[in-house]
Amino acid sequence: MDNTFDVYDTTLRDGAQQEGMNLSVADKLIIAPLLDELGVGFIEGGWPGAIPKDTEFFKRADKELDLVNAELVAFGSTRKAGVRAAEDTQVRALLDSEAPVVTLVAKSDIRHVERALRTTGEENLAMIADTVSYLRGQGRRVVLDAEHFFDGFRYDPDYAVACAVAAFEAGAETVVLCDTNGGMIPDWVHEIVTSVRERTDGRLGMHAHNDSGCAVANTLAAVSAGAVHVQGTVNGYGERTGNADLLTVVANLELKHGRSLLAGGGLKEMTRISHAISELTNITPFARQPYVGASAFAHKAGLHASAIKVDPDMYQHADPLAVGNDMRMLVSDMAGRASIELKGRELGYDLTGRGELLSRMTTRVKDAEAQGYTYDAADASFELLLREELDGARPSFWTTESWRVFVETVPGDPTVAGSEATVKMHVGGERVIATGEGNGPVNALDHALRKAVSPTYPEVDRFELIDFKVRILDTDHGTDATTRVLVETMDTHAETTWMTVGVGPNVVEASWEALVDSLVFGLLRAGVASRS
Amino acid sequence: MDNTFDVYDTTLRDGAQQEGMNLSVADKLIIAPLLDELGVGFIEGGWPGAIPKDTEFFKRADKELDLVNAELVAFGSTRKAGVRAAEDTQVRALLDSEAPVVTLVAKSDIRHVERALRTTGEENLAMIADTVSYLRGQGRRVVLDAEHFFDGFRYDPDYAVACAVAAFEAGAETVVLCDTNGGMIPDWVHEIVTSVRERTDGRLGMHAHNDSGCAVANTLAAVSAGAVHVQGTVNGYGERTGNADLLTVVANLELKHGRSLLAGGGLKEMTRISHAISELTNITPFARQPYVGASAFAHKAGLHASAIKVDPDMYQHADPLAVGNDMRMLVSDMAGRASIELKGRELGYDLTGRGELLSRMTTRVKDAEAQGYTYDAADASFELLLREELDGARPSFWTTESWRVFVETVPGDPTVAGSEATVKMHVGGERVIATGEGNGPVNALDHALRKAVSPTYPEVDRFELIDFKVRILDTDHGTDATTRVLVETMDTHAETTWMTVGVGPNVVEASWEALVDSLVFGLLRAGVASRS
Repeated sequence: MDNTFDVYDTTLRDGAQQEGMNLSVADKLIIAPLLDELGVGFIEGGWPGAIPKDTEFFKRADKELDLVNAELVAFGSTRKAGVRAAEDTQVRALLDSEAPVVTLVAKSDIRHVERALRTTGEENLAMIADTVSYLRGQGRRVVLDAEHFFDGFRYDPDYAVACAVAAFEAGAETVVLCDTNGGMIPDWVHEIVTSVRERTDGRLGMHAHNDSGCAVANTLAAVSAGAVHVQGTVNGYGERTGNADLLTVVANLELKHGRSLLAGGGLKEMTRISHAISELTNITPFARQPYVGASAFAHKAGLHASAIKVDPDMYQHADPLAVGNDMRMLVSDMAGRASIELKGRELGYDLTGRGELLSRMTTRVKDAEAQGYTYDAADASFELLLREELDGARPSFWTTESWRVFVETVPGDPTVAGSEATVKMHVGGERVIATGEGNGPVNALDHALRKAVSPTYPEVDRFELIDFKVRILDTDHGTDATTRVLVETMDTHAETTWMTVGVGPNVVEASWEALVDSLVFGLLRAGVASRS
Repeated sequence: MDNTFDVYDTTLRDGAQQEGMNLSVADKLIIAPLLDELGVGFIEGGWPGAIPKDTEFFKRADKELDLVNAELVAFGSTRKAGVRAAEDTQVRALLDSEAPVVTLVAKSDIRHVERALRTTGEENLAMIADTVSYLRGQGRRVVLDAEHFFDGFRYDPDYAVACAVAAFEAGAETVVLCDTNGGMIPDWVHEIVTSVRERTDGRLGMHAHNDSGCAVANTLAAVSAGAVHVQGTVNGYGERTGNADLLTVVANLELKHGRSLLAGGGLKEMTRISHAISELTNITPFARQPYVGASAFAHKAGLHASAIKVDPDMYQHADPLAVGNDMRMLVSDMAGRASIELKGRELGYDLTGRGELLSRMTTRVKDAEAQGYTYDAADASFELLLREELDGARPSFWTTESWRVFVETVPGDPTVAGSEATVKMHVGGERVIATGEGNGPVNALDHALRKAVSPTYPEVDRFELIDFKVRILDTDHGTDATTRVLVETMDTHAETTWMTVGVGPNVVEASWEALVDSLVFGLLRAGVASRS
């Protein structure tokens, strides 16, 4: 573990600027321990004094959080022009946050000082020096984020460096060079960081945004030029194109440069923590995200699939297990029989030498995908298809005669609003009619279905629907388009989950198929025999 | 326009390996002209002979496509071991494709030659030389993609370079160094490309994958080491983490290195073409995508918003108009009154000095976002909110008494399956009851609503619903969660579009709100007065 190098997370502050993100104090109090578990050294929690939610976060964090690896950091601005640091209310709020580390953001581009801050270069230097030394005097560690540093350096290198020097001389432990606009490319970063290192021997850090698509590479370039502190956000969250993805940066530094940066071997937890944080931020995970993405180690091409049987390491840049991810074979219409055979093996079916079966499965998968099904994620639906081909018939626990759903709303009269579903089925040798209510048509249908089958199959009561995704395919047709639904279900006894897919002309039809398959698969996996 | 440098697109071949992507021949025939319009020099169309769809594509492309800027390229493998190139059926298929340029993929890592190809290093060199010279003899331009070049070079540089030299000597115009596993970082790429350039003076290209999050930067590193040909895919599509995003690569080279690479000034068309291709691939666009993403020039933070009023160039790394994108102000609960004021100005409302109104709007937006609404995309819903605050009441064209929807399915009996909606409303001074049918509950509701209001407001007939997105918020609760619907509507007369948002306990309730708002907004914008 390299203690001379800082891994600094700003998901809760700069990451929260992302379009569509809206973190509550409660969210932040759940995310912070996940970041601590990942093993970062610093967690920037927010801007107390400027954002009321953040003031509240630090107040509660002080009582409720028990961080093992990370220091909590309060972010804020240097004092205002013409005010003493001790009398600046926002500087006061940083102290009141009780955070042991304070990161001050300061202008380092003279144009921003003059045009946005509307003060002089000299006063800006005094604002930096005063605020840093005041906070140091109050016992806080201080980091300086030099905003727009790279653009500033290219315009006036002496002034940009003077800002860094002012901070170091006042006691800042690190000056972080910020590519605030995200417009740098690695060659420029390397050159500028090298040049700054020639002018000062303080510790330098890097804060990159991804506007040129180079945030990770710019961070690596700064490190190879001597930076010893990297800032970023989990999943690359952030304003515009986002911040440097701290997960990718750290995985590259650990796996490609051989450094040990995360406390407690957190690298192995990276995929799980990335996905857990996605759940909390409610930002759909990006499947192509390096290292932790669902597709990061997913192989599709028929060509590769057959070669991967020989030697997976020849086709992967890193061991997926090192970051807690896993290799996946994708079943798709581009895949040949080799992928289906490998996928079968992954699910526990030995299909070696079953050439005819593999051809039939390949055709069925192609046909289904042409209709809108996708088995990339819905392993359970794929397995039901495979079982059908292996056994000669689809596994069956009941038959459906009909179902219907009814939704009614009277604006202003909540007693009328509601959904009701009725299913007519043959289960356990009897004809069953069951009605369920719900807050929507799919919810009502789910309740009615369970009510109909649970007297015969009480096992379904332990299957809990944990995720429900709707995708409109062929969006050109508006509400008239094909709908695909993915349903994730958990067996609360076995603590296993599975995903099923349904496709139909509308969300209700598609959901019905995915819901039925989710129960059928759960019963099969639980080893329940058909009682129909 | 720099004719010594190749911009080479492989969206239709390597991009199509992406998880979830499934391009038909018809899709490819629509995408190719868009790539041509973008101004790339080469369009790799597929692998004729290996993938039947691709054979068909080249056959139809030869008759149906009329490319102005780009050469069509057929991709395929060098001849098999122990077979003459002229007798290899796959090499034959490359000729039969009638493509003027052929890109041959060849192994250049001796381990892959021996373990995956199961032949000798010598035979592999002969396979390269024979196939290149045979195709050259048949009048084709030939590019060689040297697969796993970087890993191969690190293991055995002499062998990797020998593969490139064999291709050049046989007449290949360019040898493309492929980081097939995507595990490189820019420093390594720069070093290896420099070293290859010292050993051969042929034209080198770069083909990068994004497994280390550095595909764009690796491509730039190869160019700064002397490569004169860049490969990539639109939107970075591709297997695993994807290929280098050709749009980002080219925008960086044009805007940051000052090169002119796209024919016909295609850079300005980049955003439109990127989004058009997303529609065809049906892969949800990544909002944080550099240059062309919906969020790429979207500003949220209250701090920035007030400074942007002073000077937008201080906060953007590039002019969004240069890539056909636009600056957007996001309205969100992190935004202060400055963002709302700017957003109002963008929509044509001068709110200067209306402090109290801005405070009320800020509160309303915060409250609504807490319930699940989002105005980042739904400008029309934001404008309706603003109109309500400006006028003292929500714009109203009718009142709703109640609505209900009914969905019924009998498996195996298509005559029963269907959705029916009934609305009871007061429109144009009368009570109206209208029933609509549809292929789903939302579609039926849309039809019933239009039927009820169009006798009074015939203008709604020209409003067409063009997109419909469903998002389940708070997915922990499965089908029991809050649902958000975004509806995009087009006025087919004015050719303008707008987006509205609805939130509710289920997809039908949320859709109702978004559908009603979409018509109300359309009527307002069309200058129609209330006739209720």
